[in-house]
Amino acid sequence: MKKYKALETFLIDFLRNEVSKTGFSKALLGISGGVDSAVVAILAQKAFGKDFLALFLPATTSSKTNLDDAKHLCDTFGIRHELIPIGGLVDGYFTPEKEASKLRIGNFAARMRMSVLYDISAREKALVLGTGNKSEILLGYGTLYGDLACAINPIGELYKTEIFEFAAHLGVPSSILTKAPSADLWEGQSDEGEFGFTYAQIDKVLHAYSDEQMDKASLLKTFDHALVEMVLERIKANTFKGTLPIIADLKGYK
Amino acid sequence: MKKYKALETFLIDFLRNEVSKTGFSKALLGISGGVDSAVVAILAQKAFGKDFLALFLPATTSSKTNLDDAKHLCDTFGIRHELIPIGGLVDGYFTPEKEASKLRIGNFAARMRMSVLYDISAREKALVLGTGNKSEILLGYGTLYGDLACAINPIGELYKTEIFEFAAHLGVPSSILTKAPSADLWEGQSDEGEFGFTYAQIDKVLHAYSDEQMDKASLLKTFDHALVEMVLERIKANTFKGTLPIIADLKGYK
Repeated sequence: MKKYKALETFLIDFLRNEVSKTGFSKALLGISGGVDSAVVAILAQKAFGKDFLALFLPATTSSKTNLDDAKHLCDTFGIRHELIPIGGLVDGYFTPEKEASKLRIGNFAARMRMSVLYDISAREKALVLGTGNKSEILLGYGTLYGDLACAINPIGELYKTEIFEFAAHLGVPSSILTKAPSADLWEGQSDEGEFGFTYAQIDKVLHAYSDEQMDKASLLKTFDHALVEMVLERIKANTFKGTLPIIADLKGYK
Repeated sequence: MKKYKALETFLIDFLRNEVSKTGFSKALLGISGGVDSAVVAILAQKAFGKDFLALFLPATTSSKTNLDDAKHLCDTFGIRHELIPIGGLVDGYFTPEKEASKLRIGNFAARMRMSVLYDISAREKALVLGTGNKSEILLGYGTLYGDLACAINPIGELYKTEIFEFAAHLGVPSSILTKAPSADLWEGQSDEGEFGFTYAQIDKVLHAYSDEQMDKASLLKTFDHALVEMVLERIKANTFKGTLPIIADLKGYK
C-alpha cells in the first residue's frame, strides 16, 4: 500500500494548507458511521488534532449500528466529537398528516444536517469538510445543499472502490469496512441496491468515462448495456448538482 | 423606462427557456415582502402563470409588515401562494438554554427556508428561483446554502439601485418600494445600517470595481475611503460564497 501512504501525507498537508489559506485553523465534519466520513475524519484528526470536531447527526430513522460505529471510530482515533440529533427537526416538519416520499424526507434530513454543521462551524470558527467521493459526485448521488455542501473536500477525486482500499490502509475499523455502503436516508437503503450494480462495476465505467474520456459507443462495446445506461443517465440528470446557479446575462439590456 | 420594458420581456423569456431546458415546466420562489423577491415573483407570474407558486416562510422574528406586503403583492398580481412558517424549526433548534448570536440564528433560519423551498419544489416538481441581486452577490451579503441557493436567478446582474427602478416599472406596490432593504433575519436589521452606507453609494463603487475593473488605488482616489475599504473587505471575505467546494487534485497520487 505504498501509494496510500503518500496519499495520506499529501491529503493531511492539503487539509492544513487549504484551511489555513482561509484564515481558519479548525475543521468540522459530520460522521455518519460510513467509510467516506471515517476516512476524512482520520485525515482531519491527523491534520488538526484537538482543533478537529466530529458531529454525529442522527435522524430518528438512522441506523443505530452506524452511530455505534461512529463512536467506536472516534474512540479508536481519539477524535473529539459531539452528538446533535436532528430527529426533532425532521419530525417537526414532516408531521404524520403530511404525506411525503422517503426521498423527500431523506433530502430534508440531509439539509438539516448541513444546517446544523454550518451553525456549529460558526460557533467553533471551524471550516466544514466534505466527504463526497468521486463515484457519488459523478453520479450525483447526494443531496444538493445537503451532504454535498462543504468548504473543502479531500476525497472528491477518489472512487468508492479506492476509498475502501485507502480506509483499510488508514486502519478504519472492520465494522465500517465490511458493511454495505448506504446514504442511510431511510431504513434498508443501500447504494448498490439503488444503482442495481456494485461499485466495482460502476467505478470501471466511471473511470473509462471520466479519466479516459471514452464515448458512449465505446462504453457500450466494453461494458454491460444496462450498467452504461444507468451511469450515463445519472450523470446527465445530476450534473446541475456540481454547478453554480444560472444567472441571467444582461449584456445589452442595461 | 424604455429599457426596463425590454428587460422585462427578456427576463420572462429567460425564465421560460431556462426552466424548460431542464425538463421542468413549473417554478417556485420564497417571497419575503422585500423588493428583490417581489420583482422575481412578478416576472415568474408572467412567465408561468398558475405554474408558479410563491411561498411565505416567516420565522417567529420576521416582520409582520413583510408578510402583509407579500400577501398584498400576491393579491395584486394574482400569484398563487402558500404559507409555511419556519418558526418551529428555528425555535426547536435554538432552545432558550442554547446561547447563540443573532447572526447564527438568522443564518439557520435562512437555511430552514432553503430546506422547505427545496422540499416543496420536489412536491411540486418545480424549479427554485433565486432573488439575489448583483450588489448583495458581490458583497456576499447572504447566507451560503440559504437564500443564495437556487437553480435559476433572473436578477443576479442587476444592482440594488436598478432593482428599485425595475420594480417601479413592474408596478411593485409602494409599501414594498419605500421600505428600507433588510434581510429581516432579526428585528430592526437593515442592509444599509449594517454596511454604514447607502446602496446609492455602494453601487457606484461596485460598478467601478466590477464593470469598469477599476483598481484599489483608483477607487480610493474616486470614492470615500471608508466606503471603498468596506466594499473591498466584504468582497474579499465572501468570494467563497460564489464558488464550488475545493476538491483535492490527486494527479500524481493515484
